[in-house]
Amino acid sequence: MKIVILKFGGTSVGSIEKIKKVAEIIEEYKKKNYKIIVVSSAMSGVTNELIKKSKGISKNFSDAEYDVLVSSGEQVACSLIAGRLIHKGFKSRSWLAWQIPILTKGPHKNSKIHLVNKKKISDYLKEGGIPIITGFQGANKEGRVTTIGRGGSDASAIVLAKFFKAKRCVIYTDVEGVYTTDPNKLKKAKKIKIISYEEMLEMASLGAKVMQPVSIQDARLNRIEVEVKSSFVKKPGTLITKRSNIKNDKIITGISTTYNDSKISLVGVKDKPGVAAAIFRPLSKNSINVDMVVQNISANGKETDLTFTIKTEDLNKTKKIIKENKRINFRKLLLKKGVAKISIIGVGMISTPGVTYKMFQALANKRINIQVISTSEIKISVLIDKKNVKKALEVLHKEFKLDK
Amino acid sequence: MKIVILKFGGTSVGSIEKIKKVAEIIEEYKKKNYKIIVVSSAMSGVTNELIKKSKGISKNFSDAEYDVLVSSGEQVACSLIAGRLIHKGFKSRSWLAWQIPILTKGPHKNSKIHLVNKKKISDYLKEGGIPIITGFQGANKEGRVTTIGRGGSDASAIVLAKFFKAKRCVIYTDVEGVYTTDPNKLKKAKKIKIISYEEMLEMASLGAKVMQPVSIQDARLNRIEVEVKSSFVKKPGTLITKRSNIKNDKIITGISTTYNDSKISLVGVKDKPGVAAAIFRPLSKNSINVDMVVQNISANGKETDLTFTIKTEDLNKTKKIIKENKRINFRKLLLKKGVAKISIIGVGMISTPGVTYKMFQALANKRINIQVISTSEIKISVLIDKKNVKKALEVLHKEFKLDK
Repeated sequence: MKIVILKFGGTSVGSIEKIKKVAEIIEEYKKKNYKIIVVSSAMSGVTNELIKKSKGISKNFSDAEYDVLVSSGEQVACSLIAGRLIHKGFKSRSWLAWQIPILTKGPHKNSKIHLVNKKKISDYLKEGGIPIITGFQGANKEGRVTTIGRGGSDASAIVLAKFFKAKRCVIYTDVEGVYTTDPNKLKKAKKIKIISYEEMLEMASLGAKVMQPVSIQDARLNRIEVEVKSSFVKKPGTLITKRSNIKNDKIITGISTTYNDSKISLVGVKDKPGVAAAIFRPLSKNSINVDMVVQNISANGKETDLTFTIKTEDLNKTKKIIKENKRINFRKLLLKKGVAKISIIGVGMISTPGVTYKMFQALANKRINIQVISTSEIKISVLIDKKNVKKALEVLHKEFKLDK
Repeated sequence: MKIVILKFGGTSVGSIEKIKKVAEIIEEYKKKNYKIIVVSSAMSGVTNELIKKSKGISKNFSDAEYDVLVSSGEQVACSLIAGRLIHKGFKSRSWLAWQIPILTKGPHKNSKIHLVNKKKISDYLKEGGIPIITGFQGANKEGRVTTIGRGGSDASAIVLAKFFKAKRCVIYTDVEGVYTTDPNKLKKAKKIKIISYEEMLEMASLGAKVMQPVSIQDARLNRIEVEVKSSFVKKPGTLITKRSNIKNDKIITGISTTYNDSKISLVGVKDKPGVAAAIFRPLSKNSINVDMVVQNISANGKETDLTFTIKTEDLNKTKKIIKENKRINFRKLLLKKGVAKISIIGVGMISTPGVTYKMFQALANKRINIQVISTSEIKISVLIDKKNVKKALEVLHKEFKLDK
């Protein structure tokens, strides 16, 4: 069976008219003789509205009841999609996660899918039916409704692709695909036709909000090709696939940026095991998201300097936590608001020497000072003054030929 | 176990604040050591909003998907009630009909509950839990979500009372109980403290919108006492119980009225078997609700006159159907708009002679002409000119001492 998973996000099913459009998309795949499994999110806005209700009931609303509450959103969307397909003469029906069942483990609000019982859906596909499955949810072994937290309906779609051995999963959303950089920030940003899982992971972690990293990683591990595209315009999207499928002369695939971070440096930290952990443990406990972390070698063998970045909104809290941390010693605490991170990403840099130099030279030509540098195999990130972000983005986008 | 069923209607759970109030009501029963089973409707307005969506998708929306769609409403309400009780420190959880399961038979949108699997709820009650059960819905043997049509959540509550052998079922709604007549039409209307199933059935059929007749009938057959009361004000409501429990010197319990009917008379209809059926079959097929039907004896043994009432909005349609009906013969068709039916109801009339006379005399004293008369064991209905309804209601309400 040539199975394709079609996943529709909240904006794609955000109104009755949009749901009708979704049914047309499904119809096109049906005409091409695919066996189709549809996964849907809740209509946009609905989940937030339900969460607002739960907060009105209790600031500490029961996790188990939260799952019952919000899972109703996908139920509504799926029944409407199925209803539309039936209206158009297709054999279709909604499948609520518990009806399949999609079994989960772990706590409410943050369960993980561990098993999809394939029998009923396989039979239904054989009968020519188009199953419309509620994303984001499952049932635990006690038969209670659960939701799967991070990754949401994307994660459901990837897991279903894995269990049904679908070669491709199409993620329909409100953007046309993944771009070389945020099109709202740089007009010259171009849609990427094809990108590797690894690059996409870096892009996602760095702010491209198309898909959750956890779902991309899951797709990578199970070799599922993911196509991200718009349900509103009929254009090819971005294909996320394995590196070896990419024949591309571009060294860099994309550029991601942050816009308002703060930089914290602990000068003269004792250079001994456990110091970094002692610094970051209380930050993590307080849900402060630490981004870049740079520690240079110890010049004198005794002391070192440690720098990291956080969201500026967390600056005061972070400062307080560090000052009250009795387990660490340092000579000086430097705090700097208004920094930004700019990262170039591309598997091409592995085989191309001089990418780092090229990036630094391009920034130097525009007199942009680099404050901190951090690299991985397929990514180079630098920290710069936030007033220079736009200029840096423009010059790098041009330098690495992403404009074309 | 002293079990009580508490059913909350849509207006009772119509907002977060009202749901908090509902939790307080449940708490009071818990303090009195009841084992409580809660049944809830969807928050008011939600079901209509969902139905509107389905109509946007298709004028002929799938019945099965309709059930999936609208059943989400009770799911939301139940999770919020349970969430509030948990917040207050009680052991509580939502139970979706399929989790119990409440098994139904029959077509989608109009299923009937035929079995409630008691095990899980009984165990949960023994553990001290307060189950919050979704009304209006069930699951069929294929494991699909169903809704039960007529009677809605009231019917669910009565069925649960029957299966769990609860002696009492409390229907919380937005009115304080059942009134001697519609308080919006007559200021002197009084709340009825106690009423028999039979009287309530007549009242319900005749327009008191407190409970669906089908649910009252089910309560009667299973000897379940039903208390109708408001969830907004702390006052006793109306108890619906068997006749023998009622010690009451009132002959008449209530008066119900319609306000804008039309009267249709077929003069000179052949007096032979099957004529009435031939007249009413096509009306029924066209969903025209026929109310009073009166046929007098045939004076000459050959012909008779047949009169019935309908809603005035159906008048043109009815006229057309009768004129096109080839299976019936009559000499003359009389149509009259602007009639109203006023009915007095009370088990007391069984043992009290002269009620009919008393009613007719009271109307005659006010020069109100009676057009048609129809009676049952515990009810007398008369058709009058609609301009006289208010006057008739006042005089009868006073005559039968309902003002006191």
